[in-house]
Amino acid sequence: MSIADFLLALIAIFVAAKVCGELAERVGQPAVLGELIGGVIVGVSGLHLVNPNDPTIHLLAQLGVILLLFLIGLETDLNKLMSVGGSATTVAVVGVALPFLGGAALGHLLGFRLMVSVFLGASLTATSVGITARVLSDLGHLKDDESQVILGAAVVDDIIGLVILTLLSTLAEGGELSAIGIGKTIVVAFGFVILAIFIGSKLAPYLIRAIERLDIARGIFFASMVFAFALAYLAQRVGSAMIIGSFAAGLVLARTDKGKQIEREVHDVAAFFVPIFFIVVGAAVDLRAVAGENWRYLWIGLALTAIGIVGKVLAGYAALRKGLRRTVIGVGMIPRGEVGLIFAQIGLTTKLLNAGLYSAVALMVMITTLVTPPVLRVLLARAEKTEELGGVSELLMNGPYDDERREKPP
Amino acid sequence: MSIADFLLALIAIFVAAKVCGELAERVGQPAVLGELIGGVIVGVSGLHLVNPNDPTIHLLAQLGVILLLFLIGLETDLNKLMSVGGSATTVAVVGVALPFLGGAALGHLLGFRLMVSVFLGASLTATSVGITARVLSDLGHLKDDESQVILGAAVVDDIIGLVILTLLSTLAEGGELSAIGIGKTIVVAFGFVILAIFIGSKLAPYLIRAIERLDIARGIFFASMVFAFALAYLAQRVGSAMIIGSFAAGLVLARTDKGKQIEREVHDVAAFFVPIFFIVVGAAVDLRAVAGENWRYLWIGLALTAIGIVGKVLAGYAALRKGLRRTVIGVGMIPRGEVGLIFAQIGLTTKLLNAGLYSAVALMVMITTLVTPPVLRVLLARAEKTEELGGVSELLMNGPYDDERREKPP
Repeated sequence: MSIADFLLALIAIFVAAKVCGELAERVGQPAVLGELIGGVIVGVSGLHLVNPNDPTIHLLAQLGVILLLFLIGLETDLNKLMSVGGSATTVAVVGVALPFLGGAALGHLLGFRLMVSVFLGASLTATSVGITARVLSDLGHLKDDESQVILGAAVVDDIIGLVILTLLSTLAEGGELSAIGIGKTIVVAFGFVILAIFIGSKLAPYLIRAIERLDIARGIFFASMVFAFALAYLAQRVGSAMIIGSFAAGLVLARTDKGKQIEREVHDVAAFFVPIFFIVVGAAVDLRAVAGENWRYLWIGLALTAIGIVGKVLAGYAALRKGLRRTVIGVGMIPRGEVGLIFAQIGLTTKLLNAGLYSAVALMVMITTLVTPPVLRVLLARAEKTEELGGVSELLMNGPYDDERREKPP
Repeated sequence: MSIADFLLALIAIFVAAKVCGELAERVGQPAVLGELIGGVIVGVSGLHLVNPNDPTIHLLAQLGVILLLFLIGLETDLNKLMSVGGSATTVAVVGVALPFLGGAALGHLLGFRLMVSVFLGASLTATSVGITARVLSDLGHLKDDESQVILGAAVVDDIIGLVILTLLSTLAEGGELSAIGIGKTIVVAFGFVILAIFIGSKLAPYLIRAIERLDIARGIFFASMVFAFALAYLAQRVGSAMIIGSFAAGLVLARTDKGKQIEREVHDVAAFFVPIFFIVVGAAVDLRAVAGENWRYLWIGLALTAIGIVGKVLAGYAALRKGLRRTVIGVGMIPRGEVGLIFAQIGLTTKLLNAGLYSAVALMVMITTLVTPPVLRVLLARAEKTEELGGVSELLMNGPYDDERREKPP
C-alpha cells in the first residue's frame, strides 16, 4: 500500500466512524454500532475504501483493540473484578460449553464429519470482550456489577477459546494430543494472567517512581505504553491473548497513584486507533458469501447464530452471586469477534471448512456483534427504570432463575 | 510482520526515542539528535530491532512526518511566514542551485557520466524541513524570524526538489522532457500550495462551524485530522509533497478560532507517531555500506557532505531582509532527509547509482542531519547572548554579507 492509499483509507475510516457513530447515537444506539455498520459500508461489501486484509490496516486495527483493552483495564477496579470472580468463571465455562456442544451437534446433524463439527462448535465459544466493553462504556455502565462479571467472564472465555484453538490447531495439522500437553496449555494460559497481575502490581510502583525521578518529557505516557505492549507481547508468546496482556497491564497501572493521569493520556491515542478496529471488523463482513447461490450456508449461519445467542444468554444465568441482572450478563456475552474469525480462518486454510461454512461463521460473528448493542441498551435502560422503581420488579424481570428465588433462605 | 513483531518494534522505537532523547538533552543537545542516534542503534547498523523497510513501519513513519508538519503549520503564523517570503524564496533557489551544481561538478570530476552526475547533484538539493523544524522547536526558537525564513525556504526547496525529481525520473525512465512539461510540473507544484492556502482559508471556518453545530464527540479533532490527511493526499496527487499538504492544512487551521484547541489535541497523537519517523530515519542508516572495502565511497560521501553544507550555508546569505542571522538560516537548511534518500533510491533502482554511490548519498544525508542540531544550538545560544548584549556584536557575528553593511543607507 502506498502512503497515498494509506491516507485515503484513514480518511475513509475516520469519516465512516464519526458520521455513522454520530447517526447511531442520534437514534439512541451506542456509537460502536454505527462504527461497525460504517465499516460494512466502506469495506468489502460496500465501497471497498478500506481493505481489512491489508497488512498495515490489520496491524493498526490490532493495535486499536490492544489499546482499547488497556484503557478498559485502566478503568477497571481489580478488587471489584476479583469479587465477582466466581460468577465470571461459571458464566465463562457454561458460555463456552453450551455453544460448543450446540455447534458441534448442528454440524453432526447436517452430516459433516467430526473435525468439521468440532470446528463449528469451537468458533462459537469466545466472546469479543472489545465490542461488549465498548457498548458498556458508550452507555456509561462500565462500572456496574454485571459489567464486571462480563469483563471477567470474557477474559476467562478468551483464554479457554485460545486453549481450544491451540489444541484444535494441533489436531488439524495432524498432530496428537496428550493429557500433559493439554494440561500445560491450560496452566500456561491462565498462569500468565495471574503472574502478570501479581508481579506487575509489585513492579509498577517502582517503575513509575523511577520514571518520575528521571523527569523525562511524557515519560509516564511512554512508559505505560511500553508496559502495555510488553505484556501484550508476552501474553501472546506464552499462548495467551495479546488483549489479555494489555488488559492486565491496565488493571495493574490503574492501582498506582498515576492511574488517572495514564488513563487520560492513553485516551487521546486510543481515540485514534480504536475506531480503526471497529471499522475493520465491519469492513471484513462479506455479504456476498451468504447471498445468492449460497443460500444453504445462510441458513447454517442463522442456525449457528441462534445457538450462539441462546448458549450465551443461558450462560448468564450461571452467575453465582445474588442480585445480578443475569439477562444483561448473558446478552453482554453474545458478541463473537476476532477469535471466532480466527477459528474460521484456520478452518479455511486447513481445508476443514469450505468457503460456505466459513461465511456461515462470519455471518454468525456479524449478527451476534450487531444485535448486542441495541439489545443491551434496551435491557440497561429497563434495569435503570427498575432501580428507580425501587427494585420491585427486578425479580420478575430476571425470571425464574434469579438468585432470590432459587436460593433457600438460611 | 506479525502483530507480536510489530509490538516489539514499537517498544524498541519508544524506548530508544525516549532514552536517547533524554540523554541528548542531558548533554545540552536537542532531543531529536538523540532520537536519530537511537534509531541508528536499534536499526540496520545496530540491533536490527527496527526494520525501516517494513511496509507498516515505513507508513507509520510517513504518518509521523505528515503529523509533524501539520503541527508545525498549526504553530506557524501565515502572515509572518509571508512577510519573509522574498528571503525564503531567494534562500531556497540559491540553496538548490549551489549544491546541485557542486554535486554535478564532483560527479563530472570523478569521471561519472552526465546522468549520474546530475543525480548526485539533485540528491543534494532538498532540505528536510522536518528535522530542522524539530530542532528549532526543541530549542524553543520556532517563532524566530530566521525560523520563518527556514520554514518558508524549506517548503519552496521541497517543491523545487520534487520538480527536479519528476523531471529526472522521466529522463531516467527513458522519457523526453518538453518545455511545456517542465512548465506544467512547476506551475502545478507551486500552484497547489497557493490554492490550498487560499481556498482552505475560505472553507475552514465554515467547516469548523458545521462540525461545532453537529456537536460530534471529538469532532474538531477528527475533522482536522481528515483535513490534514486530505490536503496531504491531494498535494501528492498533483505532484507536490504530502508534508507540504499537511503543513498548508496546519497554516490554514491555525487561523481559525479553534486553532489552539486543534494544536493541543493533535499534539497527543503526534507524540505517538513523530518519534517513529526520527527513529526510522536513524534506523535506515547503514554504516557498513561506506566502511571496509567501500572506503572510496566514504570519501565521495564526505565530499558530497562538504558540498551540501557549504552550499546551504552560503544560501543563507541570500536572504534579502535586513537584520536576519544569516548563518542560522544557512545552517538550518543543512539537513537532508527523505527527499535525498528518495533520489538515491530511484537512482539505485534505475541503475544510475551503484550501491557505493547510494551509500555515499546516504552518508551525506546522515551527517548533514546529525551535525545540524548541535551546531544550530550553539549558534542560537550565541545569538541569544548577543541579543542580551544589545545586538552590538551581531554585525560581526554574521560577517561581511550582513544587510547592515551591504545595503547603502538611503
